[in-house]
Amino acid sequence: MTYRPLNETTIVDYLAQRPSLSGVFTDFCRLSVSEVGDGNLNLVFIVENTANPAESVVLKQALPFLRVAGESWPLTRERMRYESQALLKHNELAPGLVPAVYDYDEDMSIVVMEHLRRHEIMRKSLVARMRFPRFVDHITTFLVNSLFYTSDLYLTGPEKKLLEARFVNEQLRKLQEDFVYTNPFRESPENHWNPLVDDAVRAVRANPQLKMAMAEMKLAYMTHAEALIHADLHTGSIMLNAEDTRVIDPEFAFFGPMAYDVGAVLQNLILNYLSHFGHTADREERQSYQSYLLELVREIWNEFARKFDAVWAANNRGELVPQSYWDFPGGAEAFSEYRRRYIHRLLQEMAGHGGTKFLRRVMGIVSVWDFTSIQNLEKRAIAERSAIRIGTRWVMERNTVSCIDDLIGIVEEEVSGITT
Amino acid sequence: MTYRPLNETTIVDYLAQRPSLSGVFTDFCRLSVSEVGDGNLNLVFIVENTANPAESVVLKQALPFLRVAGESWPLTRERMRYESQALLKHNELAPGLVPAVYDYDEDMSIVVMEHLRRHEIMRKSLVARMRFPRFVDHITTFLVNSLFYTSDLYLTGPEKKLLEARFVNEQLRKLQEDFVYTNPFRESPENHWNPLVDDAVRAVRANPQLKMAMAEMKLAYMTHAEALIHADLHTGSIMLNAEDTRVIDPEFAFFGPMAYDVGAVLQNLILNYLSHFGHTADREERQSYQSYLLELVREIWNEFARKFDAVWAANNRGELVPQSYWDFPGGAEAFSEYRRRYIHRLLQEMAGHGGTKFLRRVMGIVSVWDFTSIQNLEKRAIAERSAIRIGTRWVMERNTVSCIDDLIGIVEEEVSGITT
Repeated sequence: MTYRPLNETTIVDYLAQRPSLSGVFTDFCRLSVSEVGDGNLNLVFIVENTANPAESVVLKQALPFLRVAGESWPLTRERMRYESQALLKHNELAPGLVPAVYDYDEDMSIVVMEHLRRHEIMRKSLVARMRFPRFVDHITTFLVNSLFYTSDLYLTGPEKKLLEARFVNEQLRKLQEDFVYTNPFRESPENHWNPLVDDAVRAVRANPQLKMAMAEMKLAYMTHAEALIHADLHTGSIMLNAEDTRVIDPEFAFFGPMAYDVGAVLQNLILNYLSHFGHTADREERQSYQSYLLELVREIWNEFARKFDAVWAANNRGELVPQSYWDFPGGAEAFSEYRRRYIHRLLQEMAGHGGTKFLRRVMGIVSVWDFTSIQNLEKRAIAERSAIRIGTRWVMERNTVSCIDDLIGIVEEEVSGITT
Repeated sequence: MTYRPLNETTIVDYLAQRPSLSGVFTDFCRLSVSEVGDGNLNLVFIVENTANPAESVVLKQALPFLRVAGESWPLTRERMRYESQALLKHNELAPGLVPAVYDYDEDMSIVVMEHLRRHEIMRKSLVARMRFPRFVDHITTFLVNSLFYTSDLYLTGPEKKLLEARFVNEQLRKLQEDFVYTNPFRESPENHWNPLVDDAVRAVRANPQLKMAMAEMKLAYMTHAEALIHADLHTGSIMLNAEDTRVIDPEFAFFGPMAYDVGAVLQNLILNYLSHFGHTADREERQSYQSYLLELVREIWNEFARKFDAVWAANNRGELVPQSYWDFPGGAEAFSEYRRRYIHRLLQEMAGHGGTKFLRRVMGIVSVWDFTSIQNLEKRAIAERSAIRIGTRWVMERNTVSCIDDLIGIVEEEVSGITT
């Protein structure tokens, strides 16, 4: 089908003729359609069966803006393709932990997916001090399954290279390379920061050891094609409720370092931890919630490491270290020790990537709502200065980290002087 | 043009109608053609103007073997495509150090290139104890240019990813992953080795620390997409004479770790060094040539490091660490120190990859002619045992290597007891 943008009138006929949607709606005559997108890059529609509101989908379509057709339109279409490909792969590897995809139409740049009506964006829920008893289990399963099963630990060499070749994603990768690893740490017009932390921001930009260390992490980010990573897995890319967790918006997905995704989750939980020095005046309430968050960080890492090791030991199908490579006296123990070292390396790299991301959220193009929603700039500065100190130490001390408690210890040390 | 295999009769008409060859031959009426290939995968013809033998080319065409059309034919065609793409890129980046490519016809799976008539395969010349006064300069220029200019140090992020996407090369990469890093170190039917070193071979396969370390190098080989590497840069892939050096046969090329290529050159020079315990009975003559080879190793590394640093400092166009990233007091020194650390990492990784390759040449599918041409198995075993000891130490001690003399020192220590 030739590309044409849909509207609230044409969408029903479009949906009715897609074979894969015949099981989603029992009746195409009673569909209500509302456009909910901001109209910048994508059209976003919610389509609902008025006779049975449980039958409801989200349809996203990339928009061609002809006035900038030379660059943005191919980018927009590619973005939709990468998001859809990643969503489909995540559905295959971690069903129930991402929105279900009902249909993908590459010609029309359309993806039709589950409408998550009972879920909230995690970032907002954390500012509201909500707790999520199933989150550790859910997010670690998502991380282990999406990373392990797209890596050389599970796929054959050719399988992995051919999957990787479908995620070149050179434009969105450039955005992350620039906005996470480079621009926040040099003069760049889009950077902005709280004037009350200006001295600390300038000190980061002029710290030679830190700059060299972050450039090492950037090299790893740009070149270490370990697995299909989400590459934007902050708490704004997670929707959840007490029972259910979904990872959304994987348009940045590419083959990169596994530790980047794990680090994004933990580092965003700690940003939220710091934000409560601004949000939560009641000290007891704050300390209770902050302890909960640090315990989440500990449990997520430990559970990730446990599951990753177990899944690998039970499914060592890839060509990196096949079973027969370990077929010698003591080989089983060597394989176990090799897995331990592999996961320990992930922890250290997580400190490096996560540390860099602490810093960029204070001095780059985009902060986090946890921080920006603190109206009082002095209170906000408390959180931001802490983020800078913690991020700096995570990066600089990454090669001596031996367990997650080392990283949590840095957080605790760097907030110990806060008297608010 | 639809694919059809050429023969000695049809080739002249084919060449005459290719526009890019009009400058190569002044006269298409006096061409002589001879088929020189082994006819397994490719047709190889030498075409010469009988009126002016200086006008001479090599034409390679991938052959379709219909009896195995399901797998080998696409592989053969792809192989020709990767070889041609890499040759063209090498011609662009290191002209005069690779065979000139006159024409590439993807539909016909044909590449037409310079006929190297005055060059010898380096491996044979080294066994004959020849010396090459310009080799250090030539090979370091090839290495620096082919690696630096295809990396994130020079290319923009999107430029590099789009170039990388043209070198997926999943089938030939699997060959190297299996035959360099895996199969030699486990039971595999194609492995063969000198029965006189059976104990040492079995010890390698059962050494847990060594196996874990080599698996770490394999992970780097499989996932670290730093630059377009040749990936088979042994002394059989180098043709040269006293004035001229050419790197040939880049069909394995892909985006991998830079250190792999540098390590291949140095490690093959040292294999040749060891082979003279079998080839060269005159002790004085042997020691003189062996000293020459170790000095070559030292000069190649040091000159590679010097040129790499200088080219980077003068052409820091890539997006890894742009100039403005270093725009702070002391920033120039920090950039210089960052480059030093980067190159030092290459040295350590070179020890890991090169060390693994020492071992695989003694116990895998294919040794090197330097060794296999030693008829006396006891003499050959002297070289092979040394290669195993040196390779093991290069791998195991890689993280403490601080300069090339450390690696040369290991070679000297491990041959110091040889009394022949």
